[in-house]
Amino acid sequence: MARSRIWQYFVLSVYAAISIPGILCLWPMPRSLKAGTTSLVLSTSFSIDLQVQDAPEDLQQAITRTQSYLRNDNLGRLVVGRGTSDLGLLQGAKELQSLRVTLSNEAGKARSISSEATAPLGSRSEEYSLVIPSAGSTATLIANSTLGLFRGLTTFEQLWYTAGEATYTLEAPIRIIDSPAFPYRGLMLDTARNFFPVSDIKRTLDAMSWAKINQFHWHVTDSQSFPLEILGFTEVAAKGAYSNSIYSPEDVKDIVSYAGARGIDVVVEIDTPGHTASIHESHPEHIACYDSSPWMTFTNEPMAGQLRFASAATTNFTAGLIEATARMFPSSLFSTGGDEVNLPCYQLDVETQRILNATGQTLQQKLEMFVQTLHGGLKGLGKTPIVWEDLILTHNVTVSNDTIVMVWSSSSAAEGIAAKNLQIVHAPSDYFYLDCGAGEWIGADPDGNSWCDPFKTWQRAYIFDPYENLTESHQHLVLGGEQVLWSEQSGPQNLDSIIWPRAAASAEVFWTGPTLPDGTPRNVQSALPRLYDLRFRMVQRGVDAIPLQPLWCALRPGACDLMDAVKVPSPHDR
Amino acid sequence: MARSRIWQYFVLSVYAAISIPGILCLWPMPRSLKAGTTSLVLSTSFSIDLQVQDAPEDLQQAITRTQSYLRNDNLGRLVVGRGTSDLGLLQGAKELQSLRVTLSNEAGKARSISSEATAPLGSRSEEYSLVIPSAGSTATLIANSTLGLFRGLTTFEQLWYTAGEATYTLEAPIRIIDSPAFPYRGLMLDTARNFFPVSDIKRTLDAMSWAKINQFHWHVTDSQSFPLEILGFTEVAAKGAYSNSIYSPEDVKDIVSYAGARGIDVVVEIDTPGHTASIHESHPEHIACYDSSPWMTFTNEPMAGQLRFASAATTNFTAGLIEATARMFPSSLFSTGGDEVNLPCYQLDVETQRILNATGQTLQQKLEMFVQTLHGGLKGLGKTPIVWEDLILTHNVTVSNDTIVMVWSSSSAAEGIAAKNLQIVHAPSDYFYLDCGAGEWIGADPDGNSWCDPFKTWQRAYIFDPYENLTESHQHLVLGGEQVLWSEQSGPQNLDSIIWPRAAASAEVFWTGPTLPDGTPRNVQSALPRLYDLRFRMVQRGVDAIPLQPLWCALRPGACDLMDAVKVPSPHDR
Repeated sequence: MARSRIWQYFVLSVYAAISIPGILCLWPMPRSLKAGTTSLVLSTSFSIDLQVQDAPEDLQQAITRTQSYLRNDNLGRLVVGRGTSDLGLLQGAKELQSLRVTLSNEAGKARSISSEATAPLGSRSEEYSLVIPSAGSTATLIANSTLGLFRGLTTFEQLWYTAGEATYTLEAPIRIIDSPAFPYRGLMLDTARNFFPVSDIKRTLDAMSWAKINQFHWHVTDSQSFPLEILGFTEVAAKGAYSNSIYSPEDVKDIVSYAGARGIDVVVEIDTPGHTASIHESHPEHIACYDSSPWMTFTNEPMAGQLRFASAATTNFTAGLIEATARMFPSSLFSTGGDEVNLPCYQLDVETQRILNATGQTLQQKLEMFVQTLHGGLKGLGKTPIVWEDLILTHNVTVSNDTIVMVWSSSSAAEGIAAKNLQIVHAPSDYFYLDCGAGEWIGADPDGNSWCDPFKTWQRAYIFDPYENLTESHQHLVLGGEQVLWSEQSGPQNLDSIIWPRAAASAEVFWTGPTLPDGTPRNVQSALPRLYDLRFRMVQRGVDAIPLQPLWCALRPGACDLMDAVKVPSPHDR
Repeated sequence: MARSRIWQYFVLSVYAAISIPGILCLWPMPRSLKAGTTSLVLSTSFSIDLQVQDAPEDLQQAITRTQSYLRNDNLGRLVVGRGTSDLGLLQGAKELQSLRVTLSNEAGKARSISSEATAPLGSRSEEYSLVIPSAGSTATLIANSTLGLFRGLTTFEQLWYTAGEATYTLEAPIRIIDSPAFPYRGLMLDTARNFFPVSDIKRTLDAMSWAKINQFHWHVTDSQSFPLEILGFTEVAAKGAYSNSIYSPEDVKDIVSYAGARGIDVVVEIDTPGHTASIHESHPEHIACYDSSPWMTFTNEPMAGQLRFASAATTNFTAGLIEATARMFPSSLFSTGGDEVNLPCYQLDVETQRILNATGQTLQQKLEMFVQTLHGGLKGLGKTPIVWEDLILTHNVTVSNDTIVMVWSSSSAAEGIAAKNLQIVHAPSDYFYLDCGAGEWIGADPDGNSWCDPFKTWQRAYIFDPYENLTESHQHLVLGGEQVLWSEQSGPQNLDSIIWPRAAASAEVFWTGPTLPDGTPRNVQSALPRLYDLRFRMVQRGVDAIPLQPLWCALRPGACDLMDAVKVPSPHDR
């Protein structure tokens, strides 16, 4: 019952042998990797020797976590028996006594991981070098930054399997020189359609850091609710949130520092001028077509209501709100949204039409002024604005050249952004939307499926080409990408299971780049067992990452791969 | 970004008003229901007065659970403010002091819920009558069986909302006379592709009972693993399970009694002769084409290997295994499977071909003998056999008239089963498969989606018509139906979220039948708020049922319903 009756549809073909990947299961795969075939075990007295002067607290805590993961992951190898048969190979194996962690001479004074993770995109160093000698004794991790050291610690944790009492690798010596292919490797979470407690966000940040995802794109507010308490604008959440489902300034500090300590930059989004009906509860004067009906004429999701951007008062209010929010986040990035601005809303808004007539300006000119005012305020704070593609491609708004544009409608839309010489973050719904394919959430639609069917599999995300549709001269505009969870049908109940391990797929796309260290292209066949190791570690560490196959397949890499059936002569053929 | 830009595609239409359903949110809806408009609160000293002589322990425990749910559900009404505005209406409301629980005179001596839940399908009484007077004092629940009383208690729990300190209804008096439209209302779980601990199964049984689902179809074994320890055949699980992921006889007793106490009959399936490769680990002599390659020629899922049913020794072994398993379960039902039998496997099996030549019988004749032997053994134990449709429709096997056939390939296949005058349980993949639409689990398939895309929404399951494609003369053959979870991509991590609240949809289809108590047809619009109340109760009781919409929609029934957009004149039209 689990697949259609394939045996009815024989295909004559050659039987291709399955290539079984190696056992060194890192995720994301490092850029440069050399491994051997010598067994090596972690000494029972293994220690991490931090040789960094005035080591920042978050680095020390990261080392404590690494030691805890090494002790508790208990990950068996992906073979029947989970590696118990390896114990023989470990007889008399050398022992690794310690990992020596140091900064390079160029590094200068050690800064906290947090401060390096939130530095401007171009200015961060995530590079590290990790050497595990086959002779045991001491391994070395060196980097130009504590952020690089943290990435290296994350890789070191993934090198080891457990069998019986032994924590070991069969592939020493190991030499890794690593740095990401793209600076922006993100995950977006919508906390406005449905709310997620701080503990859920922290658990998600942990899982992100294990896959070296470094940007948490927080779509915190929307038309359904406004859960962010903003200093000076506390009435907006007080009246616009789901009752007391509010992130306080203390919660934001907590989330930002938790993320930073894990090498993650929190990019907040206050979506404007659309997706803002919830602001009406506190500021009706700034919202046009509030609750207008039928909602489908005035918004893509109930309820209708958008910022009256043609109004100078609304523009000033919004700029103030944005600046106050930006001050709560250390990131150099800030998203003002800009997606799905609904025009009929303003065509029927008397106040907007009055302003347009009085000033003799068009709606498009007013939208441009609105966006430029918000972005001017952000630049005054030293921040780089991010917008969704719609402002550029649908409304033809002119933005400054440093603006980062998130492509979402389709991967093919990147071309139009590149043509305007703007920087690109890939978030295409046809590859990266985690919510697609789970059915219709709009009511009274008996047969409805999601608007972006089908489900976007990990395989689909993994085969994404960051340079698809882009000329070579435009490739430098790609900063990276992110998988995206809109929460119409998500809550704490399915947060982990809808995100993990799928969202690790793009993490490897944007860290490892087009090819694996041996020069072969990324491919789902060799990726699957490595993704399993990450998934098993996630489960062991308390994240509900789902199985991708029957365990039978997971323990036999390649055995469940797609292959053509072969025709068997039936008696009737004789 | 959450839906396509609908405003670009205006449709001229009339704006239809939304009908807001009432607040009496029961799931499944009773067959007969009368409600008033009087407020009534549960007395702080509310008690359940069990007037049943020698009340069985599982009934007493059910009453204790009901009292706990009444105290702890804390379910607010689906309105903004969650019903705090109701407190005014409760001023001076009458108090309900107690619920009197009795058996009717026809009932005879009280038997345990378990024994009644596991009685033969036709012989159970789930009927009950529940009266809540508007004058308060005492409500009464009466039934012909403790099973009926349990169903009534489940309904009573759903009548109450909480606001402030008050547990109340606004719709007294309430008079319910209820009994299911169909005797078989099931949920199937596959514990062979991936394993689920006993605690996960128990939590699932609890959630099932809240929706009055009464059949747990346990697809316990398959080719990937054999996790059931069977007395006299302990080697099969010892060698065929995923290491120590085994259900012991004690676990089975525990699950069966936990289910029975919740009005649930556990129907175990040992799928034969296909889906049995895991038996090879202990009995290679009984398995043909074991691990033959390419697997897609010999099985629908890795790995290949099927019972050598043409062999008398294998038939005897299997009959013994089935009978030993059947003795572990009190149910009068037992599934011998029979789906997806792969024929090429036997065409290349030397031993099978030798037997066919020696006996001069065909594979089809041998398959029929095999099935009839297994079913003969079951009937000797007083059990009714269940099979998947394939044996009848694909292999044209003759089975006795009391055999129950599960329809899975498509809802349209029911017609062919009815034509043979066999009883039907609906489990059609095009309506009820919970695993569909989550992507391809077979490896090395970069762009693959699930074979049964798209995702089967709760709406899709809810609009299922049990009599579709059936003539009136065949309708009596329909026993009910079940939603189905194949676990290729499920584990404890997503068990709740993939099942709930979706699997409650068919529970109402098969309990309530085609119409609601007011005679109107079941429809997703009026169902959604009631399904929400069930979902919120599930979450409060520890089951991770997912949100179906943004909370904004959930609290405003009808506000997010599909409606046509209206064309707004743009300046260019003037």
